[in-house]
Amino acid sequence: MPESGKHVYYFSPERTEGDATFRELLGGKGANLAEMSRIGLPVPAGFTITTQVCVAYVANDHTYPDGVEAQVAEAVKLVEGTTGALFGDVDNPLLLSVRSGARESMPGMMDTILNLGLNDTTVEGLAKLTSNDRFAWDSYRRFVQMYGDVVMGVQPRTEDEHEPFDAVMDSLKEELGVEEDTDLTADNLRELVSRYKALIRDRVGEEFPQDPTDQLWGAISAVFGSWDNDRAVLYRRQYNIPHSWGTAVNVQTMVFGNMGSDSGTGVAFTRDPATGEKVFYGEYLIDAQGEDVVAGVRTPKPVADLVNDWPDAFAELEKVRVTLETHFGDMQDFEFTIERGKLYMLQTRNGKRTGLAAVRIAVEMEAEGLMDWKTGLAKVPADSLEHVLAPVFDADEMARAESSNRLLAKGLAAGPGAASGTVAFSAARAEEIAASGRSALLVRVETSPEDLRGMIAADGILTARGGVSSHAALVARQMGKVCVCGCSELVIDYESRTMTAGDTVISEGDDLSIDGTAGTVYAGHIGTAPSEAVQVLVDKSLDADSSTIYQMFAKVMEWADQARRLRVRTNADQPDQAANAIAFGAEGIGLCRTEHMFFEGDRIVAVREMILADSLEGREQALAKLLPIQREDFAGIFKAMDGRPVTIRALDPPLHEFLPHEDHEIEAVAKQLGASVDAVKAKIESLHESNPMLGHRGCRLGIAYPEITAMQARAIIEAAVEVSKAGIAVDPEIMIPLVGTQKELTLQRAIVDETAQKVFAETGHSVEYLVGTMIEVPRAALVADKIAEDAEFFSFGTNDLTQTTFGISRDDAAKFLPIYLEEDIYQQDPFVAVDQDGVGQLMELGVEKGRDVRPDLKVGICGEHGGEPSSVEFCHRIGLDYVSCSPFRVPIARLAAAQAALKDA
Amino acid sequence: MPESGKHVYYFSPERTEGDATFRELLGGKGANLAEMSRIGLPVPAGFTITTQVCVAYVANDHTYPDGVEAQVAEAVKLVEGTTGALFGDVDNPLLLSVRSGARESMPGMMDTILNLGLNDTTVEGLAKLTSNDRFAWDSYRRFVQMYGDVVMGVQPRTEDEHEPFDAVMDSLKEELGVEEDTDLTADNLRELVSRYKALIRDRVGEEFPQDPTDQLWGAISAVFGSWDNDRAVLYRRQYNIPHSWGTAVNVQTMVFGNMGSDSGTGVAFTRDPATGEKVFYGEYLIDAQGEDVVAGVRTPKPVADLVNDWPDAFAELEKVRVTLETHFGDMQDFEFTIERGKLYMLQTRNGKRTGLAAVRIAVEMEAEGLMDWKTGLAKVPADSLEHVLAPVFDADEMARAESSNRLLAKGLAAGPGAASGTVAFSAARAEEIAASGRSALLVRVETSPEDLRGMIAADGILTARGGVSSHAALVARQMGKVCVCGCSELVIDYESRTMTAGDTVISEGDDLSIDGTAGTVYAGHIGTAPSEAVQVLVDKSLDADSSTIYQMFAKVMEWADQARRLRVRTNADQPDQAANAIAFGAEGIGLCRTEHMFFEGDRIVAVREMILADSLEGREQALAKLLPIQREDFAGIFKAMDGRPVTIRALDPPLHEFLPHEDHEIEAVAKQLGASVDAVKAKIESLHESNPMLGHRGCRLGIAYPEITAMQARAIIEAAVEVSKAGIAVDPEIMIPLVGTQKELTLQRAIVDETAQKVFAETGHSVEYLVGTMIEVPRAALVADKIAEDAEFFSFGTNDLTQTTFGISRDDAAKFLPIYLEEDIYQQDPFVAVDQDGVGQLMELGVEKGRDVRPDLKVGICGEHGGEPSSVEFCHRIGLDYVSCSPFRVPIARLAAAQAALKDA
Repeated sequence: MPESGKHVYYFSPERTEGDATFRELLGGKGANLAEMSRIGLPVPAGFTITTQVCVAYVANDHTYPDGVEAQVAEAVKLVEGTTGALFGDVDNPLLLSVRSGARESMPGMMDTILNLGLNDTTVEGLAKLTSNDRFAWDSYRRFVQMYGDVVMGVQPRTEDEHEPFDAVMDSLKEELGVEEDTDLTADNLRELVSRYKALIRDRVGEEFPQDPTDQLWGAISAVFGSWDNDRAVLYRRQYNIPHSWGTAVNVQTMVFGNMGSDSGTGVAFTRDPATGEKVFYGEYLIDAQGEDVVAGVRTPKPVADLVNDWPDAFAELEKVRVTLETHFGDMQDFEFTIERGKLYMLQTRNGKRTGLAAVRIAVEMEAEGLMDWKTGLAKVPADSLEHVLAPVFDADEMARAESSNRLLAKGLAAGPGAASGTVAFSAARAEEIAASGRSALLVRVETSPEDLRGMIAADGILTARGGVSSHAALVARQMGKVCVCGCSELVIDYESRTMTAGDTVISEGDDLSIDGTAGTVYAGHIGTAPSEAVQVLVDKSLDADSSTIYQMFAKVMEWADQARRLRVRTNADQPDQAANAIAFGAEGIGLCRTEHMFFEGDRIVAVREMILADSLEGREQALAKLLPIQREDFAGIFKAMDGRPVTIRALDPPLHEFLPHEDHEIEAVAKQLGASVDAVKAKIESLHESNPMLGHRGCRLGIAYPEITAMQARAIIEAAVEVSKAGIAVDPEIMIPLVGTQKELTLQRAIVDETAQKVFAETGHSVEYLVGTMIEVPRAALVADKIAEDAEFFSFGTNDLTQTTFGISRDDAAKFLPIYLEEDIYQQDPFVAVDQDGVGQLMELGVEKGRDVRPDLKVGICGEHGGEPSSVEFCHRIGLDYVSCSPFRVPIARLAAAQAALKDA
Repeated sequence: MPESGKHVYYFSPERTEGDATFRELLGGKGANLAEMSRIGLPVPAGFTITTQVCVAYVANDHTYPDGVEAQVAEAVKLVEGTTGALFGDVDNPLLLSVRSGARESMPGMMDTILNLGLNDTTVEGLAKLTSNDRFAWDSYRRFVQMYGDVVMGVQPRTEDEHEPFDAVMDSLKEELGVEEDTDLTADNLRELVSRYKALIRDRVGEEFPQDPTDQLWGAISAVFGSWDNDRAVLYRRQYNIPHSWGTAVNVQTMVFGNMGSDSGTGVAFTRDPATGEKVFYGEYLIDAQGEDVVAGVRTPKPVADLVNDWPDAFAELEKVRVTLETHFGDMQDFEFTIERGKLYMLQTRNGKRTGLAAVRIAVEMEAEGLMDWKTGLAKVPADSLEHVLAPVFDADEMARAESSNRLLAKGLAAGPGAASGTVAFSAARAEEIAASGRSALLVRVETSPEDLRGMIAADGILTARGGVSSHAALVARQMGKVCVCGCSELVIDYESRTMTAGDTVISEGDDLSIDGTAGTVYAGHIGTAPSEAVQVLVDKSLDADSSTIYQMFAKVMEWADQARRLRVRTNADQPDQAANAIAFGAEGIGLCRTEHMFFEGDRIVAVREMILADSLEGREQALAKLLPIQREDFAGIFKAMDGRPVTIRALDPPLHEFLPHEDHEIEAVAKQLGASVDAVKAKIESLHESNPMLGHRGCRLGIAYPEITAMQARAIIEAAVEVSKAGIAVDPEIMIPLVGTQKELTLQRAIVDETAQKVFAETGHSVEYLVGTMIEVPRAALVADKIAEDAEFFSFGTNDLTQTTFGISRDDAAKFLPIYLEEDIYQQDPFVAVDQDGVGQLMELGVEKGRDVRPDLKVGICGEHGGEPSSVEFCHRIGLDYVSCSPFRVPIARLAAAQAALKDA
């Protein structure tokens, strides 16, 4: 429990004031140093100045709260007592490191000072103590350089200027005619220190400080100040770390891995962070300081080699490895230094890992008894399952592509996985390529429902325009297709059938590869493979028992299903999608978009005939042709879902989306329907809308053309009756879109109910069904109490609700969304994660008002957000019954729902 | 106070149970018959069956509540006692009329039965009593016909079939060889009755009922049932009368205006309903029944002639006229019958009147002491001031146009008044016509900001597309221009420079006339004149003292300003508009749209230069050219407003609105700016948006291009400083549009504040200013507490707030809005009157949350709704500080605000 007024926390083998629970106050590094000290691991003595001091220091114009200086002085005394070394002492000088340490790791973002305490006097003491003049003077010159750079601000004055300290060293080496730093003698280094000090005097107009206490405060203030440097601010923005947290400062006795061949330093993981395998993983350097490992100047050795170099140290580290995992209950990433054969621990933290590793580590540590299943579940970031499910590039081929500079462009990672294939600039071409047995990549400026057949045929989709919830992204994820979208560097020219990225021109028929997990586009072919989980669940080409990855995945899903309250459904329009979704654990369909069916095969002809009809009679004739087709679609889905609930949405998009836009297509349609080209053009013109998103769509179509709703209701109910008669349970939910007033729903549901009664009478067989509505415009949420009088369920259409609540078209947002994220106006893209303050407020209101009137109202979400972990958590919190997302995100939603439930409990 | 279980209310000179306050229960007619009875006016005895009986009758499958029949029977007895006549009596038969009477008058919508009580026996009694066989048999045959039609349903069976009773009469006249109904003798009529009864038997399979009680119940049920006939339902929908009100039934002793030359019937107004002048106004027919006056078969005489025909009756009516006005405190519209020299009052109600008459009557009745000023104020429908202000067609010329069938089409009445001029299909052409000194009418499919100069030049605007809050309508009303929009019958062909309506083709250069009060379009020229109020206030061409209309108007405005709490501002972009608005009583500018200024003169060149610039530097160069122009604009407005608050909105529309669309314009722009045509086209293409309403506009522009906000802030503050230095007070309010998050406002206001401080430092002079925001997307209302931290004022932009709350583009709504109004999904067009349940809920939330954080937050509305009476009342109720509307609606808003305050008090 932190004490008020206590700013400094001491740690040493003898006495330690903090522990791992002090993370907020001491930062991750400080808290874990304290914890390691407590459990007897060999941590060099030191102390941590709290994050609260940082917050006060930044807020109060770089002044410290009362008591900080005295407490630091006292802590330095304690360190002196523990180590026997004295700060500024000529015989046994205490040397310190000063490092930042925030609550969350921000690697390399803030400043570090080493060898603090050295000056013109103590350097001689160090030399004597270590019997190593060169070591002492090299340490001193490093310290002067680091301090001059970080604390005193001696840095290049223009972008072109060389690093000034390096320039001084280079000129000395030139004078001496030596090549390498290591060729410099102790005397050379003494001269170098003198020149460094002159440089500082010259640049700053001040002397390099000789008083160790001045040095210490200079370093502490520099580290606290670095919390607000540009790099750190940018990093925090990117990783959603609040600016208000502040960093702690850790001051610690120096240990030296560079004291000769019996010294060294390394970083290691208790398990493999890439695969999760339980092997000691990491690397070390002999005769080096920690910074050297990170800097990559020399190539480190794998930790396994330690057993040969220093068998004792290796054995000790193996023990440490077990202790750390047992004690911290998670895979650890730690730093160590060996000074003249003695091991010191400098840091430990929970190791970052890939999605694959996250799953494996959780499952195996649970099996080993190192964590319980609930902890294991919490340890797997829900999004990381994407990596378990997505197809991947062959690692070797990928390396070759990278090394031969085949990276063409970067876009938005919209559909995870890797795909490689032949470029097609039209849906038709993509189908031809697929028909010939090759993989196609559909490349479009942006996609529309007309491209659907091409998207089905293609292995991957690449667009130049549109965000992560554009049509391309949405459909791709639903289909589990790889997709990179909004790749604005690409210039796509349909006429010449080329795309250009910088100087590279790719023509139709060329090979291209895209990585929808990374958002990258490569020229040429890169081989891929489906994930093992997909091979087991979807392709059934791999036996579950023979895939460790699958088994790990299945275990996590088993835990998730045990913990979650939220149901998880899927957005699927076709029986095969539905089947995939069930394989991934979907418990129903939350959104079946009937209009996607309208584009398949010849049915688009009937759809267009209906649109072009000028009379009710004409429309009814055309609808009569669609009826049996839709009925068959729905029957297929009901069969695939085998009694699970299926929410079918009535026709939603504006009718002009079904009409062609180019002259030759218009001519073809006119011919097909026996209409004049002028008539077709006139219809297209009359259906033109300034803002189609806000136009004649959703239930506004059903209100204007009740016969469409009647046909769709009939198709659904007839299909349900047919399947039910065949002995398969059905659970249809008919959903009216874009409702904003109660009356819209009253009128539309009357048509549905009337139609259903007719069908029941005609067939002599009836089925249960529900009628409900999307809540996707703000007004619907605001009058949800009225709407609930006619609705048996609500489904939040958060895509449109986000668009209307913000007044932002997701198709057009790409122009300013990057600026908005950059400027921190939006912490997250509201089309990716539910905006809880605004859109979420409407959702809560909708749930509350709806359930006031109808306590058993079923409420779900079918926007793209239904598969995004923070949104799933929000849906859990406000009491939704289910979330619905694209089939390939169902496992993610299951896991996120479970984590939300655990957090809630 | 109505008694429970009492269904029937009696009225007669001796005993009356209801009074005028029973309007809800007895309907308007019934309540006023009772009231007239009470104050001694000669009302024939009768009774009223309540509206609650109607509601129960309709709800309970056409059955009556307990007690109704007994109470009716009792009331009939009372009538018998009063009149001495007996129902069904052969010597002195009681004859009754049965009429509907709802809370609000629904003229001609529901059924009426006269002469009830006649049968084969009583007809003889009536003949004897009146010594007039023919009168008796004519009355009987009329009753049989009316009863057969209305109660027994003998009506044409096909659309082509002749009215069956008329057919029977025609065939009888043919047999008899007579031409006119009046040529039929009593015997002929007896035969006719016999044939009518046969017709009924034949068609209905039932006998015409001889029992007067059966007749009475048939008639009562028919009248109650007629509440739900199609015509009545349609009428109520149109006039927003709730279906749940029901109608009362009035059963009353028959009096006959058709008993010879000493009998007659008439309708009259206590004052002239067209002009409001205090003259006895109306018309009458000698020897006729009420229906004959309405039917228009014979031409009635003006009531003034009564003084010659029947001086006694005239004198009595003059007395009645004074009594009615004194008693009811308003101008009355009443019906009377004179039966053999004796006057009977059959109905009175508050008379409908034109806007002009409403004003005059209120002012004069107040002066006469007949009502107090608050009542006078409440009696003038706020919208009716439009008629006082709008220019009008010359009455004679209009009559000629009507009679020569020059009406071409009907559209939406979007900008009141009349205009006549030469047709122009482009803004440029309109300017040319105006420059040549002629009146121009700008005719466009729809207008855009590019048409602005043409709209300024034109006297009237006519569009084929767009609703009453389309760009055309909005700008027209702001400018006080006559406008008819959404005239979908028109086919406008820009290429051939023609518009076609039916068979009529109008070419550019032809004359056309439009009435924006009625929404009508006429071929050819019809002379017009500005209203007197405008001549006094705006044109200053008429002296206030010499215009009665103006004085009346000014009196109402004086009352309004005394009563209201809400301030009224105007939406104006230019000094002359501002001056007009002040003349109309505006107390500030609530919305000054800076972008409208961007289209004037050469400044559009600089605007385009800015848009086409690819660098910050290029944009800043172009903005530097705009700065002095904008500064001058603002200075002009500040001077015109002379210390009143002026809310200036930062740039709002998407940049593509400033770029041309047609090839030759693009070429011209490219040449003008020294850019390539391809570059201009590429820019236009890159700025294209799928949903511009939800696109890169509002503060999103200022976030992406902070230099635009900085330039505008500088222009505003420099202008304010300049005007303030010249000794004129200034009160600038800088408004950031389309804010959805606090951070947007924080960033934009930082630019404004920084710029202001710079200008104050540069000029050594500072002024007070406010920074605030539009609340025009739902999210802004939802997080108003956050936004209020940075906003000193809110202004509800209810146009966009309505679009986003409903998810409806007002540009595209025309396709389904008519159906929505028809189907009663919307009670009112939400772009005309604030949707209080949805949009209003967000407004209330915004006010509440905003004032929670900042109790002195100034809140207004600047959407088009700010000039609509029901919306003004709503704004008053939720505590807004002001409404802002187009200059010509300012008086309406003042009046509506006053009425809201009175209602509230």
